[in-house]
Amino acid sequence: MKTTIFTFHDHSPKYKQIYERFKSFIEQGDILANEKLPSIRQLGDSLQVSRNTALMAYEQLVAEGYIRGEGRKGYFVNEVEPLLSQEAFLSPHNKQTESQKPPVVHFRADAVDQTHFPLKMWRRMANQVLTLPDSFRYGEPFGEACLREQISTYLFQSRGVKTDANAIIIGSSTQQMLVYLGHILKDEFQSMIVEDPGYNGAREAFQFHHFRFETLPVDETGVDLSQLEQMKSRLIYVTPSHQSPIGVSMSIQQRQMLIHWVNKMRGYIIEDDYDSEFRYTQKPFPALASIDSARVIYVGNFSKSFLPGIRLSYMVLPEAILHRYQTQFAHFESSTSLLSQLTMATFMESGEWNRHVKRMRLVYKRKMLHLVSECKKQFGHTISMIGEQSGLYLLIKVHLNHSEEWLIQRASSYGVKVYPTSPYFINNKTDTPIIKLGFSHLSCEEIELGVRLLKEAWL
Amino acid sequence: MKTTIFTFHDHSPKYKQIYERFKSFIEQGDILANEKLPSIRQLGDSLQVSRNTALMAYEQLVAEGYIRGEGRKGYFVNEVEPLLSQEAFLSPHNKQTESQKPPVVHFRADAVDQTHFPLKMWRRMANQVLTLPDSFRYGEPFGEACLREQISTYLFQSRGVKTDANAIIIGSSTQQMLVYLGHILKDEFQSMIVEDPGYNGAREAFQFHHFRFETLPVDETGVDLSQLEQMKSRLIYVTPSHQSPIGVSMSIQQRQMLIHWVNKMRGYIIEDDYDSEFRYTQKPFPALASIDSARVIYVGNFSKSFLPGIRLSYMVLPEAILHRYQTQFAHFESSTSLLSQLTMATFMESGEWNRHVKRMRLVYKRKMLHLVSECKKQFGHTISMIGEQSGLYLLIKVHLNHSEEWLIQRASSYGVKVYPTSPYFINNKTDTPIIKLGFSHLSCEEIELGVRLLKEAWL
Repeated sequence: MKTTIFTFHDHSPKYKQIYERFKSFIEQGDILANEKLPSIRQLGDSLQVSRNTALMAYEQLVAEGYIRGEGRKGYFVNEVEPLLSQEAFLSPHNKQTESQKPPVVHFRADAVDQTHFPLKMWRRMANQVLTLPDSFRYGEPFGEACLREQISTYLFQSRGVKTDANAIIIGSSTQQMLVYLGHILKDEFQSMIVEDPGYNGAREAFQFHHFRFETLPVDETGVDLSQLEQMKSRLIYVTPSHQSPIGVSMSIQQRQMLIHWVNKMRGYIIEDDYDSEFRYTQKPFPALASIDSARVIYVGNFSKSFLPGIRLSYMVLPEAILHRYQTQFAHFESSTSLLSQLTMATFMESGEWNRHVKRMRLVYKRKMLHLVSECKKQFGHTISMIGEQSGLYLLIKVHLNHSEEWLIQRASSYGVKVYPTSPYFINNKTDTPIIKLGFSHLSCEEIELGVRLLKEAWL
Repeated sequence: MKTTIFTFHDHSPKYKQIYERFKSFIEQGDILANEKLPSIRQLGDSLQVSRNTALMAYEQLVAEGYIRGEGRKGYFVNEVEPLLSQEAFLSPHNKQTESQKPPVVHFRADAVDQTHFPLKMWRRMANQVLTLPDSFRYGEPFGEACLREQISTYLFQSRGVKTDANAIIIGSSTQQMLVYLGHILKDEFQSMIVEDPGYNGAREAFQFHHFRFETLPVDETGVDLSQLEQMKSRLIYVTPSHQSPIGVSMSIQQRQMLIHWVNKMRGYIIEDDYDSEFRYTQKPFPALASIDSARVIYVGNFSKSFLPGIRLSYMVLPEAILHRYQTQFAHFESSTSLLSQLTMATFMESGEWNRHVKRMRLVYKRKMLHLVSECKKQFGHTISMIGEQSGLYLLIKVHLNHSEEWLIQRASSYGVKVYPTSPYFINNKTDTPIIKLGFSHLSCEEIELGVRLLKEAWL
């Protein structure tokens, strides 16, 4: 066997790096079947690792059938079929990161601003929580009482939603909650109405239970409720405060019409109020659940308003649903970090939460205004903007006779990553592509650069 | 209306306390229907709160129908039926905590030792993680690559399980993962084999998808696999390293028999290896997945070995299942805290994790030995002990001709909370009650006191 020089990196244990190197030599035919490998001692000495490390690498290769030990004679390579398909399947992530450079400007909608995060205060509270005996147990199945109390107060003050803390269920993501909720609803409801375009993540959660969908068309002028009366479903999933993805808000007349409809049908509205904190032009519109909560399942989360990685969501259940939920999931462990719950409860109770939301509303408003003005400056009438009144992304409808795919590819080759909206559409497709620009984590300089690069790429 | 003196406490906002006080006055008839309430100004002045606070309290009472505003005339009490049943339903938690004193010694199995928690190190790493840009986004749907790498290394070193990091799925609780996994399996498998007694939480997760159950009897001598060949199911859920709840371990012969069976049936074994870190008498037994991983779904978590409230679990999927899982859940957001994942990855990579597990094994071993010797001393042959070789609880079979319920009630009246095992049993019930004593969070003194009180209560 040829002498090989290894360079170890720090990302994984040395035995694993040795094992992986040998594995790839064998698979690529650089070491042939029945060739003798260096002894444990030789390998250890030449690579300057302990014999134990060398032994572990060989043991894993033996275990996976790449090599065999023949007692005192040493280690030999086995016949190995190249497993290319398996390799490609098992390591898509590694392959991808090696071949792709990170974009210069990334208009992602799945992140939040880091600069204004209340790092010191949150840390102090999180550190404090870790000293409580209460932190060393499993949490309550439906969420900690202290956090539910805080959310109840917050919902009343900020969204007009009146609820008892016991009607609040804490979950770890909107989708996880919708999967559990769907389980409660699926016996009574086999189909549901969704917005088109609408949040695909919610549809996927409902598809878990094989709900059929009827669709309500949405465009820049709003949701079209005229067909509601003809529909058969009695269950509807909507995003009234900030339609996902189109960004329009339901008027009070539309809200009242929906409430009227759901009471007549004796059905339920699932109101996903995922980012209502960030409305820039007026006060946030009242939630549907604040008008009449008897048939509204209100869903909220901390992903946009605080930190997506904290994985903290909640829903407010009307009494009949709550009762079924509590019975069905009485013995299910909570899937939400107890530490995050206790820290967030302290954070909210201290008033820091309200301050944070206020501060971030100003920060994001400034960024949104900047993005809008840059887009206007660079693109003029070749694009139209949608949803600039609220949220952490802007949609731009690009009137340049290019496909969505072309726009994204072309932007990418200029170092800008932007996102499609086509995954949100079902039947109600548009001819003119609509591109999604998330800006929450970008500085004003990055926004400026990003839009300039987009212009170069597209015009 | 009589003058009332309020004492405000700090646990909830003042408006809420006012609202709750008025609500209970009205419900209990202390304020009668149609009685006039103090004006906003009067109330604010007399309670020394702002008018806004007083107004919010009244608004919530109006919204819930307890009172009505009559314009300039002021606020009046409505006719209200006592809503006792709803109250009892909505606030079981509050009611309970008011009426029950905490036990003197709580033999809970749902907590971990706090004294030896690596507080400083974990805090430092968690604080560090909060400064990374990576922490301000949504996580990868199947878990962070760095943590999956660490778990892969750990599983190989500690459990002999060889797996590519990409075959590991990170979840937030065993039940959440089993619900998602069940969704993948339910089309191919309609029934499954479970241990009896066995972990009820797993059964509940599978019942989510209406799996039917066949049962394998388990007692102190082990699991009875003799009926396996006659069973129709090709899917089995087992806890081979430390049977939950009985505490026995499968012999290597039984393990091989299971592997042989599953290959013949072309089915799958779900191996829940929930606390294998804590085996006190020998080295941990090898996992089923280390013998043959092609048809074993390996499930592990950090709840016992680290912190239940962190909500961090994982499973290793065989290729065919992995592929289905990746396709089905490609667009599902992770339900596990990104911050916890990144912190745990750092903690494991630094070597602190291995040190922690070793240290805790010694700590828990000492506690288990102490509990066993105290039980022997106080109870002699009136009890037999089960499962003292591993885990964070001890089972005692109580030969005193009392029911499980009596034993628990009686212990409770002596200030000791102990747990039943009857919820784990399906058909294979025992006549002699088996009581569960969790000890992980107790000091040796508390263990001693607890057992002494149990003796006084039972003998």
